[in-house]
Amino acid sequence: MKYCSHCGEEILFSIPEGDNRPRYWCNHCGVIHYQNPKIVVGAIPVWEGRFLLCKRSIEPRVGYWTLPAGFLENGETTRQGAMRETLEEANARVEIESFYRLFDLPHINQIYVFFRARLLDLDFSPGVESLETALFTEAEIPWDDLAFHTVRLTLEDYFRDRRHGVYPTLDLDVRRGSR
Amino acid sequence: MKYCSHCGEEILFSIPEGDNRPRYWCNHCGVIHYQNPKIVVGAIPVWEGRFLLCKRSIEPRVGYWTLPAGFLENGETTRQGAMRETLEEANARVEIESFYRLFDLPHINQIYVFFRARLLDLDFSPGVESLETALFTEAEIPWDDLAFHTVRLTLEDYFRDRRHGVYPTLDLDVRRGSR
Repeated sequence: MKYCSHCGEEILFSIPEGDNRPRYWCNHCGVIHYQNPKIVVGAIPVWEGRFLLCKRSIEPRVGYWTLPAGFLENGETTRQGAMRETLEEANARVEIESFYRLFDLPHINQIYVFFRARLLDLDFSPGVESLETALFTEAEIPWDDLAFHTVRLTLEDYFRDRRHGVYPTLDLDVRRGSR
Repeated sequence: MKYCSHCGEEILFSIPEGDNRPRYWCNHCGVIHYQNPKIVVGAIPVWEGRFLLCKRSIEPRVGYWTLPAGFLENGETTRQGAMRETLEEANARVEIESFYRLFDLPHINQIYVFFRARLLDLDFSPGVESLETALFTEAEIPWDDLAFHTVRLTLEDYFRDRRHGVYPTLDLDVRRGSR
């Protein structure tokens, strides 16, 4: 960030008066350009005990498998975002069942929110950000080829919870400890 | 947003090639300036059955009472953010107990995340964004003078859950239905 998006002048990166941390701000028009974490929303789409994954066609992690997920857009709820991402990445329709995981990823300024979801039909196919889409049983999950740590944790937790038949919501800092 | 923060040229607001919704973007340098929802994090600080609230000294809702909460900053976890906001607004130290509520506020492009928290001592006082800080029992909560709908819902749910002794996590769209 080099220029003020409000007035076009060059901006500063320093602590504005009355604040306590450095910000991008403009000493011509006074606007402070706050930067805040982004929200990634995703679904765990299940069809008769099998899980819908997408092989990524875009960076990062091209060629690796992921749960459908992406950035929450303005104007939508987290559940709507998870449904939209599933539609965009796998052309798949889901019904959201319950909120399942919140992950903190402070090292990349993101939080992830995953929902349990029921895949409504088998008419799915790769969207433009996917090379392949497929259903996997627990035994078939490509553990060595998962795109993201959050996806691995979500699936591991889901399979463990499934054995008990209850799916408690948790928030996890994925930098913290061994997980 | 009128100017490109990367190159300083005037920007467009239209659907970039390969996208499906209008964005601010620059046809000089090609940068797309995505705008995404922000995360507000807050705490429910409890001391022996009493709840710490702050009377706001800043807009919006000057003079109304709120739970300590504010925008999550880059580089911090949601729990860290809730602790920091409690320190900034009430000079109060808390231990986060559990993740409690996620609210979707798509009409203002925000999500709220509230945590149950234990107030660690009584050495609290108004921060610069507060006029007063005080502890309230359930009967003393200033229901008619609460700053935000999310604060009312959080406290109502908390008191209901307290009667059962369990505090299940929920996500709620606060535009949806009567709540």
